Amino acid sequence: MPIITLTTDYGLKDHYIGTLKGAIYQELENVQIVDVTHKISPFNIIEAAYILKNSYASFPKGTVHIIDVDSELSVDNKHTAFHLDDHYFVCPDNGIISLITNDIKPKKIVEINLHKRLEANTTAQQIFVKTACHISRGGSLDIVGNSLREFKHLQQIQPHVNDARNKIVGSVIYIDNYGNVISNISKKLFQEVGKGRPFELQIRKFTFNRVYKNYNDIVNYTLPKAKRQDDGRRLLLFNSANYLEIALYRSNLTTVGGASTLLGLDYQEPVTINFL
Amino acid sequence: MPIITLTTDYGLKDHYIGTLKGAIYQELENVQIVDVTHKISPFNIIEAAYILKNSYASFPKGTVHIIDVDSELSVDNKHTAFHLDDHYFVCPDNGIISLITNDIKPKKIVEINLHKRLEANTTAQQIFVKTACHISRGGSLDIVGNSLREFKHLQQIQPHVNDARNKIVGSVIYIDNYGNVISNISKKLFQEVGKGRPFELQIRKFTFNRVYKNYNDIVNYTLPKAKRQDDGRRLLLFNSANYLEIALYRSNLTTVGGASTLLGLDYQEPVTINFL
Amino acid sequence: MPIITLTTDYGLKDHYIGTLKGAIYQELENVQIVDVTHKISPFNIIEAAYILKNSYASFPKGTVHIIDVDSELSVDNKHTAFHLDDHYFVCPDNGIISLITNDIKPKKIVEINLHKRLEANTTAQQIFVKTACHISRGGSLDIVGNSLREFKHLQQIQPHVNDARNKIVGSVIYIDNYGNVISNISKKLFQEVGKGRPFELQIRKFTFNRVYKNYNDIVNYTLPKAKRQDDGRRLLLFNSANYLEIALYRSNLTTVGGASTLLGLDYQEPVTINFL
Repeated sequence: MPIITLTTDYGLKDHYIGTLKGAIYQELENVQIVDVTHKISPFNIIEAAYILKNSYASFPKGTVHIIDVDSELSVDNKHTAFHLDDHYFVCPDNGIISLITNDIKPKKIVEINLHKRLEANTTAQQIFVKTACHISRGGSLDIVGNSLREFKHLQQIQPHVNDARNKIVGSVIYIDNYGNVISNISKKLFQEVGKGRPFELQIRKFTFNRVYKNYNDIVNYTLPKAKRQDDGRRLLLFNSANYLEIALYRSNLTTVGGASTLLGLDYQEPVTINFL
Repeated sequence: MPIITLTTDYGLKDHYIGTLKGAIYQELENVQIVDVTHKISPFNIIEAAYILKNSYASFPKGTVHIIDVDSELSVDNKHTAFHLDDHYFVCPDNGIISLITNDIKPKKIVEINLHKRLEANTTAQQIFVKTACHISRGGSLDIVGNSLREFKHLQQIQPHVNDARNKIVGSVIYIDNYGNVISNISKKLFQEVGKGRPFELQIRKFTFNRVYKNYNDIVNYTLPKAKRQDDGRRLLLFNSANYLEIALYRSNLTTVGGASTLLGLDYQEPVTINFL
Repeated sequence: MPIITLTTDYGLKDHYIGTLKGAIYQELENVQIVDVTHKISPFNIIEAAYILKNSYASFPKGTVHIIDVDSELSVDNKHTAFHLDDHYFVCPDNGIISLITNDIKPKKIVEINLHKRLEANTTAQQIFVKTACHISRGGSLDIVGNSLREFKHLQQIQPHVNDARNKIVGSVIYIDNYGNVISNISKKLFQEVGKGRPFELQIRKFTFNRVYKNYNDIVNYTLPKAKRQDDGRRLLLFNSANYLEIALYRSNLTTVGGASTLLGLDYQEPVTINFL
């Protein structure tokens, strides 16, 4: 059964999810529709890209991913479909694909021109549904649009390494449901620059100098459970996407707080590592 | 595969969604269950009606829509099933159907009487599931209830047009995820009364005198992108459901705010158009 | 088609739902994935247990329930799979099963040892997916782990009955989407201790001395609808899970408030019944 995933900024209350899913079932009787998320901050393609970058490859090859964020058609914003890494992405050409992957070249890109064949008031959502269902039926991208050679690239803020190569200045790219702070410093960069040297990461009054492998590596298991006081302890680790993450052990944003609230870290704030 | 959609005020945490979906799968092995929304404000049938009114027709004919909002059985509140516009609605007879559509007459209405054949403590949810699954299997409405000729009608607040026919006084019926404010003034009424005349819509200190076609019609594309300052600009348009909407371009309730917060507009507040 | 349900503390925005569902579809083409909830408070296995306890049995026999809450592998926290009450649970051995049911003995328990056969950085989520899909394909628990005789038990706070057997001191175990307050006092205990005697339940300045059968039993239907003032009236009833619940008729946490806010009741606060 074909799979179509949905990543939008609709929220979970309005009628937009209903119209989207209904329209897909109108086109395809047998399809698995999967909500990746509808809680993208309005128009925030950076968030949408972060979430898809870390989840799309988990789906079977051939999966079609609809990204309906900031998709109103304009002279600046085409509707596009990408065949990339054996997946399909149906999305606006607003740079989001360049944020999902910079390394993998698309096998095929088309500018969707279905709207020229449909009624004038056809919405972006309807265009995306028609395109995604066409692909899910095994249809060719050439039927729904004209080949594009180029697509919009956005520069993601990359970590900066100083000339002496003993400092990485990265920044916060995402704060997750637990309040954990994810930076743009990859394990690869950290290891290439650090070469195993000791380091310090200073945030507010706190110093980190060790990267843990698991959250619970910080737990003192020699103490009996009732005497342990590890909840809320600060730690660094590389998350499942291999980015440096600043976490609190068993954090909870609504009770004890998370790393983001306790360390006062917001999106885009600097995260600096000094190798010693 | 039959489709059953769900519109409830359960929220997304309690066990009610699990019991509902589990019960459906007990009855039907092959079924597509679609969440329209579970975020209706508790007991708010006006919201539930607004969301279904704008989404039900997107689904294939024959779809069964369960609406579990304010559904406790009482002398005032029957359980009903409607065959309407080639769709089925399983819901309380609390007026919600009259808010979804006033124009289309139901082909068939039954008062569900399954509870008389089931255990005393059978919940409204279980009754709705039994009914929806019966319909999904192709069963007749007559099996689950007795024909009803009448159903409860609620008067929705309609826009008022003055005698001179140069003024429409409508009101806010919904505020969406982006903070956009949707009024009950339809494009049809606006055009019938306005007959192409210029108009003014005054809200707080702001005057609107133009209806845009798309959100980005407000963008000054002659400027280079970096110099544009269109985010947050106010505009009027007819939304995809053809109701007059007061919007901010690329609004975000949690950052810059939306039309609802910046203009201080709440549900049911008046929206007045003066034709000049 | 096999059913796999998901109960997690991921929230609804991060990429974790996408990676989880994608991984399941990689393993199984035909499967119904059902979100029970992703809104468990971080690491709160008591909440997760309450929600599953009240919903799992609604699903068909053979359903596989993944519970990914507090699941990081440690010397303290094994990964386990349970065959229990004709359902399967794939979850950490952190006591959650003992909170879901204390009465029903598991037919089979295994400590999952798949991680020993997979790459070192395999996540708990991936282990749970592999296990759940194996079971969904009809595979034996013995293939994914070693039999366990014991599993972790957590003591849930039980209501206390005094020696004179005229008083039950229970506590709040959950507050639902409507602000209704659910206690750990079961209908069975209430009836066994009370033996039909009158009672008083005092909360703040309010006294309850009657258990209603339905929410709307509190409504005065002899008055015409426009004159009724029942919304927000306080009442006791046994909820669908047969626990004593303190409710407000048609409460709404975001407008008039619910029982939890108006009575100032929080999780774990005492609820005392005096029989007269």
